[in-house]
Formats: sequence, C-alpha cells, structure tokens
Amino acid sequence: MQTLILVSHSAKITEGIKELITEMVPDADNTFEVIAAGGTEDGEIGTSPMPIVDGIQNAKGDHVYIFTDMGSAVLSSETAIDFLTDEQKEKVTLLESPIVESAYIAAIQSTIGASHDDLLKAIEEQA
Amino acid sequence: MQTLILVSHSAKITEGIKELITEMVPDADNTFEVIAAGGTEDGEIGTSPMPIVDGIQNAKGDHVYIFTDMGSAVLSSETAIDFLTDEQKEKVTLLESPIVESAYIAAIQSTIGASHDDLLKAIEEQA
Repeated sequence: MQTLILVSHSAKITEGIKELITEMVPDADNTFEVIAAGGTEDGEIGTSPMPIVDGIQNAKGDHVYIFTDMGSAVLSSETAIDFLTDEQKEKVTLLESPIVESAYIAAIQSTIGASHDDLLKAIEEQA
Repeated sequence: MQTLILVSHSAKITEGIKELITEMVPDADNTFEVIAAGGTEDGEIGTSPMPIVDGIQNAKGDHVYIFTDMGSAVLSSETAIDFLTDEQKEKVTLLESPIVESAYIAAIQSTIGASHDDLLKAIEEQA
C-alpha cells in the first residue's frame, strides 16, 4: 500500500481531492490510502507541520508521497520531515508537482502496482 | 477585470481554490473574480456544461479563463463554449494546466495588470 498525503493551503481542496480519488479510482485491493492534511491546525487557510507529521506517523503505506500546492506547503512538509527518524525519512517522498493531477495519477499508478520509479515518472510525464 | 472559472470534478476543490485565492491574493482594485463551477449539477463528483455556461454568461470580466482538472472537465468546458456566440467565444480561454496552481497565478497576474499574453506565459512558466 502507498500513502498519499495532501498538503494544500485549503482543507477543502485536500478533502475535495480525497473525495475525487475515492470516487474515480476504484481500488478493491486497497493499494493506496489518502490523507487530507490541508489548512492550518485551527482550520484557517495555510499549512501546519503537525498534521503532516501525524499523517506520516499513522501511515499504513510502505511508502509515503506528500503532495503540495505551493510555497509554504512545501516548507511545512520539510519541517514535518525534519521531525522524523532517518529510517522514517527513507520512506517519504516530497513532491512539488500539480497537487490535484499528481495525486490522482499516483492513485491510479498504485492500483496497477507501479514501482516507486514508475509512479514518479508517470507524475512527471502527465501532470 | 478578469473572470476565473474553476471546473474540477469535485465542488469542494473549486470552493477550496476560491477561498485560497480570496485569502491569499489581496485584490483591493477588484481586478478578478473567481467562479466555482465544480461537480455535477446535482452535486456529485463529475462535471456539467451548464454551470460553466452560466459562469461565462454572468462573467463580469473582460476575459474569461477556464481552469480544468482533467479529462471530462475539459470536455464539459468545450461543450459549454459551443453554446456561446462567436463574439462570446473570443473572450474565453480554456486552460488544461494544473488547476490549483494556475488559478492562483492568474489571480496574481490580474492584480499586477498583466496582459493576456503575459498571464498565459506566467502560467506556462510557473505552473
């Protein structure tokens, strides 16, 4: 299983991406999970490292892909990754590609059993 | 003024992008408006041409930029554009670039008074 963590400045955007993927990408074999970690901890527009840390710590996936929308979403994710052990860090990939389109592609790639490299390549090519 | 119409398969995504832009792009001079036209007409995941047609018909902007997330969002937008007169079509640009990032860049470009070409160039370079 892959874990897809969504980090946008708007919680609604991450909830929307989660519902879009859940609806549009059939996943009978549970090849991925989607964690919405958008908005600040108090529900405002922005990002916070702690929901991202929580997402990573609770991830069921063998690998964690973090999708970001812009600027401080990347910074918050980097801060979150700093909280991890070296072993945990190895299973996390931070992406700066288009958040909606990339997360959707990653979900599809998970369902077809794509390797880590193939998943990243598909995002790079299509997003 | 520019009109930015958001067409995602999830209404939550378009509402989220609208709140993100409203919060993060100060626009004292009202250089842009954002219209969320995501989801189907009955609130499901998907897209419908009619909310897009409505958005275009009611647009206050001199030019209308339509942002799409994937596949059928583009098709619904093309269908919506088919409903327009030739005069209306001239003021509409359909984009297939990353929806969150491109709409945000378009809003910023509007506030600095960017030309049509410069706005498209900024999206192409940064999104």
